[in-house]
Amino acid sequence: MNKKSSALHEKDGVSKPETTSKTSAEKIKLSRAKQNSVKEYVAKILDRNITFLSKAITLVESTNVKHQQKANEILEQCLPFANKSIRIGITGVPGVGKSTFIESFGKHLTSQGKKVAVLAVDPSSSVNKGSILGDKTRMEELVTDKNAFIRPSPSGTSLGGVAQKTRESIILCEAAGFDTIIIETVGVGQSETVVHSMVDFFLLLKLAGAGDELQGIKRGIIEMADAIVINKADGENERNAKIAKVEFNRALHLYPLKESKWQPKVLTASALHNCGIAEIDKMITDYIFLTKENNYFNTKRNEQNKFWLLSTINQQLKDNFYNNMLIKTALQEEIKKLENEQTTPFSAANRLLNL
Amino acid sequence: MNKKSSALHEKDGVSKPETTSKTSAEKIKLSRAKQNSVKEYVAKILDRNITFLSKAITLVESTNVKHQQKANEILEQCLPFANKSIRIGITGVPGVGKSTFIESFGKHLTSQGKKVAVLAVDPSSSVNKGSILGDKTRMEELVTDKNAFIRPSPSGTSLGGVAQKTRESIILCEAAGFDTIIIETVGVGQSETVVHSMVDFFLLLKLAGAGDELQGIKRGIIEMADAIVINKADGENERNAKIAKVEFNRALHLYPLKESKWQPKVLTASALHNCGIAEIDKMITDYIFLTKENNYFNTKRNEQNKFWLLSTINQQLKDNFYNNMLIKTALQEEIKKLENEQTTPFSAANRLLNL
Repeated sequence: MNKKSSALHEKDGVSKPETTSKTSAEKIKLSRAKQNSVKEYVAKILDRNITFLSKAITLVESTNVKHQQKANEILEQCLPFANKSIRIGITGVPGVGKSTFIESFGKHLTSQGKKVAVLAVDPSSSVNKGSILGDKTRMEELVTDKNAFIRPSPSGTSLGGVAQKTRESIILCEAAGFDTIIIETVGVGQSETVVHSMVDFFLLLKLAGAGDELQGIKRGIIEMADAIVINKADGENERNAKIAKVEFNRALHLYPLKESKWQPKVLTASALHNCGIAEIDKMITDYIFLTKENNYFNTKRNEQNKFWLLSTINQQLKDNFYNNMLIKTALQEEIKKLENEQTTPFSAANRLLNL
Repeated sequence: MNKKSSALHEKDGVSKPETTSKTSAEKIKLSRAKQNSVKEYVAKILDRNITFLSKAITLVESTNVKHQQKANEILEQCLPFANKSIRIGITGVPGVGKSTFIESFGKHLTSQGKKVAVLAVDPSSSVNKGSILGDKTRMEELVTDKNAFIRPSPSGTSLGGVAQKTRESIILCEAAGFDTIIIETVGVGQSETVVHSMVDFFLLLKLAGAGDELQGIKRGIIEMADAIVINKADGENERNAKIAKVEFNRALHLYPLKESKWQPKVLTASALHNCGIAEIDKMITDYIFLTKENNYFNTKRNEQNKFWLLSTINQQLKDNFYNNMLIKTALQEEIKKLENEQTTPFSAANRLLNL
């Protein structure tokens, strides 16, 4: 039936305007065509192209499923070229001087011909919008160093998620030729444990205080440290730093010898005046030498991979269970029963699992 | 049709003998009738009948599903009468004198009119058949004390399973009127963490050694301790014990104050000579007074219940996943790929979860 022949089509309206101009459409088409293939990404990363390294990390950090698929392909192809760096974790409470320390330490490394990537795990950044490494101006020298690459903490709702992204970024940085990866985190929560599980060497930054040297640091972090560096050991602080060094050394010697056979060291440094930095570099070199000799280095990396495999699975299993609406409601009821001493944890668990 | 009228029934055979004699059948019927009901169990336990308490714990420890169902019903009905004791965890490496200490400490408590139940969590007992508390003769006085009840560690393949049974036995003991529950474990593995999560007060037994006082104790156990008792502080050991006391006190003061607001104490004792035992009793009383005042006591018990609820669920989720045959095979393949740097932990996890 001809449209015009029906009374219903008495008025056909004005023709719809094109929503996009022809030139714009052309541009978009062109840019889409320019979207780089996995192959291009990998080639450019291996060619140490920082722009492509950054873009690839953005894909890793994206929540878009297509981006994630692409990121996974890039990662798997970069893998054979990764794993060849030294990974150093650095933690310490806010105010301890992490940025200044990393700037000073990083500059020292690049002056030795090293290529340094600085990444961060900061679970708080997504909540309060504050972020370590976010303010790159605090590392103004390192940020302009062509042998350094600085990337702020990815945002995310769970520490596990944030850490996963950082861990994948390590692989990309290594493939791009960075031989020293520094992972920064704040010493205030669970994030140190997570960073500890992705680095070869774990360094705790401290300030000399009066007496209660271990205050403010979560239990267990001291035990994880391969070295404690007492920062800001300059001017009037120098004497206190030396006293603190003795105290920490005593405390560290009370712990049993680590699996790495490495006796954790205590050093003092003044990042501001570049004092003690070369000694820290040497200590880490000693550690790497020792642990490569006794094969702990490789054993640990294999263990870390298995840890991440299993913890990803376990996290996902829990997420699937606890995010179920039925479970959410029932769980609250069972917890109330527990508090009122009406059930045992084991009966409650059975009921929930049978839902 | 009459049987005999058919040729097929030419020979009807001899009559089948009864497989059980009438008297035996009668006996079995009687014994079945005597199987106690949940109601009987609960009544007898509340009546402080030790035989029924033991039988109920056997039900708790049974792997038979029917027994477990019965145990759960008994537990739920006992719950309103439980939770009124003080639960004390005691750990220490083999040779530190745990049995002698518990004997001495237990006798001290019963002499004060207390009723003491001694349970154990020993994950190793199921493997090597050795068992703490298994050799009751080492507590020959306490075992004959009518105000004491001693039960060896349940056997089991997983620490979680062993701990669950002990935790449920606590409830039964409390319902049976025991006001002090002592949980013993060996200081050599994960079991202390598990025991720590089911007691109000956690006591670490140590020996005075030369210098390396913290050796041989797993990292983190010192931090969990509410008190360190240096045992065998007698004869020539007394001086060493005093030195060790000073050292431990210094080490403990380096840790941040506990959530309980309790500053962990270091005491010396000679369980063999009943020296220092009354002081330990007093210290625990002080702790209970403090934590009941500041409500930490109840908060901790609630937290422990929630912990056991969630950890039971999480364990079950993992068991269901990893015991799947398909997963078992695929997991081994993915781990091999990881070791050969052919995949990332996260891609491997995704593939396994999608199976």
